[in-house]
Amino acid sequence: MIQVAINGYGTIGKRVADAVRAQPDMEVLGVAKTRPNFEAETAIEKGFALYAAIEEREHLFDEAGLDIAGSVDELVADADIVVDATPSGIGAENKSLYEEYETPALYQGGEDADLVDVSFNARSNFEDATDADHVRVVSCNTTGLSRVIAPLRETYGVEKVRATLVRRGGDPGQTDRGPINDILPNPVTIPSHHGPDVETIFDDLDIDTLGMKVPATQMHMHSLNVTLEEEVDAADVRDLFADESRLFLIPEHMAIDGSGKLKEYALDAGRPRGDVWENAIWEESISTVGRDLYLFQGIHQESDVVPENIDAVRAVLGTADAEESIETTDETLGIGL
Amino acid sequence: MIQVAINGYGTIGKRVADAVRAQPDMEVLGVAKTRPNFEAETAIEKGFALYAAIEEREHLFDEAGLDIAGSVDELVADADIVVDATPSGIGAENKSLYEEYETPALYQGGEDADLVDVSFNARSNFEDATDADHVRVVSCNTTGLSRVIAPLRETYGVEKVRATLVRRGGDPGQTDRGPINDILPNPVTIPSHHGPDVETIFDDLDIDTLGMKVPATQMHMHSLNVTLEEEVDAADVRDLFADESRLFLIPEHMAIDGSGKLKEYALDAGRPRGDVWENAIWEESISTVGRDLYLFQGIHQESDVVPENIDAVRAVLGTADAEESIETTDETLGIGL
Repeated sequence: MIQVAINGYGTIGKRVADAVRAQPDMEVLGVAKTRPNFEAETAIEKGFALYAAIEEREHLFDEAGLDIAGSVDELVADADIVVDATPSGIGAENKSLYEEYETPALYQGGEDADLVDVSFNARSNFEDATDADHVRVVSCNTTGLSRVIAPLRETYGVEKVRATLVRRGGDPGQTDRGPINDILPNPVTIPSHHGPDVETIFDDLDIDTLGMKVPATQMHMHSLNVTLEEEVDAADVRDLFADESRLFLIPEHMAIDGSGKLKEYALDAGRPRGDVWENAIWEESISTVGRDLYLFQGIHQESDVVPENIDAVRAVLGTADAEESIETTDETLGIGL
Repeated sequence: MIQVAINGYGTIGKRVADAVRAQPDMEVLGVAKTRPNFEAETAIEKGFALYAAIEEREHLFDEAGLDIAGSVDELVADADIVVDATPSGIGAENKSLYEEYETPALYQGGEDADLVDVSFNARSNFEDATDADHVRVVSCNTTGLSRVIAPLRETYGVEKVRATLVRRGGDPGQTDRGPINDILPNPVTIPSHHGPDVETIFDDLDIDTLGMKVPATQMHMHSLNVTLEEEVDAADVRDLFADESRLFLIPEHMAIDGSGKLKEYALDAGRPRGDVWENAIWEESISTVGRDLYLFQGIHQESDVVPENIDAVRAVLGTADAEESIETTDETLGIGL
């Protein structure tokens, strides 16, 4: 069994912990957290060994009545691999800790690409991560773009990608974020940093991206244009995407008009936390005009990278190939059912 | 003096009335309204003659203590031109009334293009409206796109336009509109109807548009891509746009990050109702990648068509050419100052 340490138990970390626990070939050695809060309480209730990410704060956990299994150093030393799910920039600070104990580490998309040996998307470049010490699971938006671009490149060839990313202002729990009643060009400068991030997965891709922020918390929405190398029927693209387990085509008859109903559907289906691990592509939106393909896709920023983290564990440790890993992850989580 | 009747005194009608009053060559003969409300009260206070748009409802105005000058039939009969500013679809119902009295009429962008002889944008096709009986001032979004496309076509040539229109869910007063906390692909099908609407102004234009709706009320935001026929420096495009009175380039030093601060700036500047009649283009966003031009622009849905309605009056009646009319309208309203 692969012993997985999870450093950071917030939006991503807690989901990765649950997903690791669901795998037949890995288990959660422990989770590290900087301070006691509702998430720390839940970790204990779920039976995860809780480690203090900052030694000087151990007493806060004691005062909150939460048992600490040890320090994050011990956790990292004993693990086969660490998933660093700390906030953007903290992963970089933690790198020396992982190096000290020679424990390979996965980082999240908020870290710089040059922190790591490989940026990772399971569908696109699984094998590149084999034996790497430091691997970055790319951001939710880059994951969502990569999953669509990979099959299009392989099947038709891609001349250019242009995408407008209409981003949720913050996650549901991020009560300090905005905007309220506004539409912000964000970043104002074009192209945005999202395109170059996708190029960490496909280094020869021509992609320009534009970002905005709006008063929504549930999902990002991509307005995507891909100029293909050949003219293709929209129906063929739909068939191509239907074969991809991490692309969910929302059928018209479901009458899902936005992320609200989509998340409600996921909750009704009993998915943990209402997570939507797949790209949610509106099937009716998939259209072609000459060589230009267009579509709308919802990207659940809290969860779409979770299966990617699981696959990255196997990729780094070389315990499965892409197809085996993705199939196992999808089956255990209930993706693409 | 051109006698202008305004049928419909809501979001657009009340603004057109004020703008007509500001012109040296026209006056408001009267405004027609279907029911008494705060806007009807204000019309009386401003000294506009108020007409009942529906005869059977005249008593409602009496009961509200509002003096009615007559019926809409009398208003239309006596006017040189009618600006129909009624809700979408009602303009079409009113067409026979205007025909009965042989009064030329302007309609708003919510009406179908085939209702009228000409679809109108002052910058793009002013002369086409001369002597037309039925002219449609295109929608706020189409107006905003046309103002940018016209100079680009004339100067560089346009191969293709791709635009994502992130639309405000409703106007500030439309309390029955949504969404709350969502990003809706709207319409879900691609391309949206906005592209063909722009083609009523430029009939040989290649344009694909995608629409969304978000929880904001202040302005639409366009993510615009124009593939030009030649490679151009972004600085040249900025210079080109700086010469267009109805394109306002938001300079970086103003620190205006979205429509909230932009509207606040317009209010601080003493503009009536905080109206932003110009396209508000973030100057920093104007970028080129090869032949691809990108930019973000805010479109104030309540007001950008107001100067266009004024120019359309002169275009239809042949009392000024495009340059004269636009200059007069801009000066009297304070556009491009």
